[in-house]
Amino acid sequence: MAALKQRQDNTALLVLVSTGLALVTILSVWKMKQFKYRLIRETGGAMFYGVLLGLAVRWLPFDWGQHVVNTGETVYACGDLNSTPHMLTVNITPHLHCYGHVGKVNQSCQPVSAPPETFDPKVLFNLFLPTIIFHGAYTLNQKKFIENFGSVLTFAFMGTLISCVTIGACVYGFTRLTVLLGQAADGDFFLTDCLLFGAIISATDPVSVIGLLSELRMDLDLHTLLFGESVLNDAVAIVLTHSITTYSRMESGHSFDTPAFFLSIGYFLGVLAGSFLVGFIFTVITALLTKFTRLCENPLLETVVFFLLSWSSFLSAEASGLSGIVAVLFCGMSQARYTVHNLSSEGRTRTKQLFEAFSFLGEIFIFSNMGYILSTFPHHAFKALFISGAFLSIFISRACNIYPLSLLLNLGRTTKIPRTFQHFMMFAGLRGAVAFSLAARDTSTEVRRTILTTTLLVVGFTIWVLGTAADPMLRCLDIRVGLDADENPEDLSLEVATGRPDTTGGLWHHLDYKYLKPLLTHCGPPLSDSLPRCCGVFARLFGRPHIQEVEEQLCETEPDDSARDTEKTENQLQSTGGDSGSEHQEDLLEGDLGLGTAAALAREA
Amino acid sequence: MAALKQRQDNTALLVLVSTGLALVTILSVWKMKQFKYRLIRETGGAMFYGVLLGLAVRWLPFDWGQHVVNTGETVYACGDLNSTPHMLTVNITPHLHCYGHVGKVNQSCQPVSAPPETFDPKVLFNLFLPTIIFHGAYTLNQKKFIENFGSVLTFAFMGTLISCVTIGACVYGFTRLTVLLGQAADGDFFLTDCLLFGAIISATDPVSVIGLLSELRMDLDLHTLLFGESVLNDAVAIVLTHSITTYSRMESGHSFDTPAFFLSIGYFLGVLAGSFLVGFIFTVITALLTKFTRLCENPLLETVVFFLLSWSSFLSAEASGLSGIVAVLFCGMSQARYTVHNLSSEGRTRTKQLFEAFSFLGEIFIFSNMGYILSTFPHHAFKALFISGAFLSIFISRACNIYPLSLLLNLGRTTKIPRTFQHFMMFAGLRGAVAFSLAARDTSTEVRRTILTTTLLVVGFTIWVLGTAADPMLRCLDIRVGLDADENPEDLSLEVATGRPDTTGGLWHHLDYKYLKPLLTHCGPPLSDSLPRCCGVFARLFGRPHIQEVEEQLCETEPDDSARDTEKTENQLQSTGGDSGSEHQEDLLEGDLGLGTAAALAREA
Repeated sequence: MAALKQRQDNTALLVLVSTGLALVTILSVWKMKQFKYRLIRETGGAMFYGVLLGLAVRWLPFDWGQHVVNTGETVYACGDLNSTPHMLTVNITPHLHCYGHVGKVNQSCQPVSAPPETFDPKVLFNLFLPTIIFHGAYTLNQKKFIENFGSVLTFAFMGTLISCVTIGACVYGFTRLTVLLGQAADGDFFLTDCLLFGAIISATDPVSVIGLLSELRMDLDLHTLLFGESVLNDAVAIVLTHSITTYSRMESGHSFDTPAFFLSIGYFLGVLAGSFLVGFIFTVITALLTKFTRLCENPLLETVVFFLLSWSSFLSAEASGLSGIVAVLFCGMSQARYTVHNLSSEGRTRTKQLFEAFSFLGEIFIFSNMGYILSTFPHHAFKALFISGAFLSIFISRACNIYPLSLLLNLGRTTKIPRTFQHFMMFAGLRGAVAFSLAARDTSTEVRRTILTTTLLVVGFTIWVLGTAADPMLRCLDIRVGLDADENPEDLSLEVATGRPDTTGGLWHHLDYKYLKPLLTHCGPPLSDSLPRCCGVFARLFGRPHIQEVEEQLCETEPDDSARDTEKTENQLQSTGGDSGSEHQEDLLEGDLGLGTAAALAREA
Repeated sequence: MAALKQRQDNTALLVLVSTGLALVTILSVWKMKQFKYRLIRETGGAMFYGVLLGLAVRWLPFDWGQHVVNTGETVYACGDLNSTPHMLTVNITPHLHCYGHVGKVNQSCQPVSAPPETFDPKVLFNLFLPTIIFHGAYTLNQKKFIENFGSVLTFAFMGTLISCVTIGACVYGFTRLTVLLGQAADGDFFLTDCLLFGAIISATDPVSVIGLLSELRMDLDLHTLLFGESVLNDAVAIVLTHSITTYSRMESGHSFDTPAFFLSIGYFLGVLAGSFLVGFIFTVITALLTKFTRLCENPLLETVVFFLLSWSSFLSAEASGLSGIVAVLFCGMSQARYTVHNLSSEGRTRTKQLFEAFSFLGEIFIFSNMGYILSTFPHHAFKALFISGAFLSIFISRACNIYPLSLLLNLGRTTKIPRTFQHFMMFAGLRGAVAFSLAARDTSTEVRRTILTTTLLVVGFTIWVLGTAADPMLRCLDIRVGLDADENPEDLSLEVATGRPDTTGGLWHHLDYKYLKPLLTHCGPPLSDSLPRCCGVFARLFGRPHIQEVEEQLCETEPDDSARDTEKTENQLQSTGGDSGSEHQEDLLEGDLGLGTAAALAREA
């Protein structure tokens, strides 16, 4: 019936399908878990169903009423003109060029029938990636993170660099092999292409790692190392991908040159610092807003503003070419450290639950979308040798990354990284959404298409095989799991934040306890004390809370939190002992560059 | 820097801008309200800022890096080829045809520079419209709604029909005038065009009305009438728009014919019933899922599943050409009536808060988007006489709709609709998102563009002027506001739902209390009692809850709810008296077709 057609809403249908997919995933995975069959995780399940859907769509020739622009003069090849759709999406990443008139740019592709798009991955990423990372950071045990910051950074930066080079080398070796075997013309794959692949695939994925960690709640140190690495990775991946692509664009680009190398190190530090700054700026805005206004009288507004501002940190970083992931990581951590104090108790629960629901949904949508693309992307370039090379190199590189670096770090760390942890880290190098998005960014050449295909396969493998095997692995390495360490981590961070002052110095501690906390929250000593005379006005302006009762209300809440903290597992108690918390931070941050001596000092004491 | 460009993410930037817009709206409106200056509402504010942004974008020539496809052979007219964007959206509603190669279909437009799109309205609608309506329905006082159902339906159906015809007639008159004044060629506007405009503009808008009602919490009867009308409107608007467009497509289409008229009445009923069914089916699914599984042990899953299923009701209705709004309305109401019993208490809070946050955000995004389009749509067709005709006709039609119908209804109702209410209803006919989406669906011809422009202006006027004046209006009509009637309406509906059984019959009551409730929830009498012998198996299958403790937990919660209910305003107590609640429903539903005698009977008793 024409009317129905006219009302028929393609978007609605697609959203509906994705929603159905999400529902099926959630319910089936949950059902399996009920039967104590905890092997399958949401991420894996979602990707699996995504693939199924993709295949179904491929093989069942069902008219999705998609408006596909043809190469020819025909304007669009389906749908009745009565229903002029409001928007038409034309995929112009070159592999789909043939759909659009734009197709003419690209020689190497043949017209194909368009598989119906689910979502634009970019939209998915902007919607959900921030919330996933934010939730991870918001509910992170900050003390542990700061303790292990040095190690985390080492793994994230050195480790990723090592894997990148190793993978590049291995894959290059294999491509030479293909040339020797005459399966490919010489010059199909340059070293830079292989390095690019290395850059794309070497970064472990925050989304899948968070998905893994949130389920098997394991030792906090291990948790922190894996989480931190996977998140900070992103900055490294960006820089590597960028620098390599710029090399390969240079004429004499297929060789290594030192200045450019140092340039990109500088660039990396720039990206890291910039992203950190963006994240922190948004925290400051949120904190001041919630401190000096009566927002906390309206939990709904409070939550929404908090949500939007945290989200913006990601978006602004992305929009200005920095790492949104890193930005939102720092934003989440600082929000949990400062802003939380200014929220009403209902606001705290609401924000946490909102982000929880969002990130849960996001994980599922992103991975089902990835699975869908894996099975519907019309220009897969399967290069058996390249793929097998990739798979091999991933394990080699991971090994060259974890074991030597742990060895190195253990020299500095007093809480050594035990062998079992190393094995598990070696094992838990899940790839996922970020690698995919990097690979999907450009698929103009055969090489790039090969890279995309291989990336998707690697992601699928790590998610399905490694992700599934993680649980038994942990058991056979007998690493303790199921610790309710991050059951209510805001309280944790709160607890750390509100630890009684200790007078011994410490740069970070000074900054945090004496200036930032009084400035951004209602806790800590009055600014007027910490600031020099000259800044009296400033101190009076920001130091004294404008709203008396709010301050009281907040100062009431804190004891409860620390009270609640006392009823925690031995493990957690260990990780959150009142002052020692702040002591550590300070020690480690002036002392051992966060290589982990602090914890030991504490234990000796 | 090339790298930055490459990372630069158009989507992120646009989302960021919208987020900023939302933040500005929320904060400024909230600040104003703090100063007891409650005239401006979120909807109005959002639209206003949207317009501002649009103007800024129009006048500040800032390169948004938008990928615009040209009419010529140039493939795309901006962006560096290095950064191949993953998707390119080409707006192919004819007014933008000139962007795309598709442009060649349409003669009547000149190449224009593309204003940067914020969001595809369709996406916004599919994302947020359902949550807004759902939240409205979920927190609706069901008893009142059922009491007033007859009146609501009369206003929604007859009323909208009357306005449509009146508006059509008025506007047609004005267009004839333009012809006489020689400002337009004869045959520019046919009667059907004017009727179409009538159909588009005559429906009041749920989003803006809900926005209005949620703030000034007024008398429940008035609330129900306005809300119900605005929501059920949608079905009527769809049917009218459809039937008129089909007429106008006919050769001899510019005249009225009876069979087609009755056909569309049938179609209307079909749409209504179909949408109702879809909504109810999804409730049944949710209810059975939450009743027979251990979902309620995991509040997060519970919430997410509940959310996705409710959302799907809208999407499936839309995808199958029915009224998603009506579907989600009934879904929301029945969820609040049945499923809520199966949720854990945390699940209840979470679902409510999730929908609350979502609909709050949605309102703002939708209206800022509308404002943005109002100021950036490049093909506005301002026809002074048409517009003034439209404005005049809107008031006339609203008057011809409310006063006669209220008069008519008051004959049947024992709780008359007082004059003051009528005045306010006459006044509160806000138009908004739905009208806009109907008008934007097709803008191929000059006429359609005129309609879109006029619609946008009318929407702006009703939102800004009427929406702002509502508060003083209520005061001078002295209608009581600020009743905390729907503070915790789930409890309300719960209370109604768990009212002690009364043995007197009543079709609706029978169905609801004896079959649906035991089937879908853990409350009410065992199915085995209500069902005949033959259905013993069925009764055993669905009647007996599989999970004992869950049932207990739930049966515990109910007394609390009713207990909480006892501490309510006089108004609320009146509207929720234990049995009488169910008695009314039954009386009115078998008795007076819900014209409102029930309430009176109760008062007499």
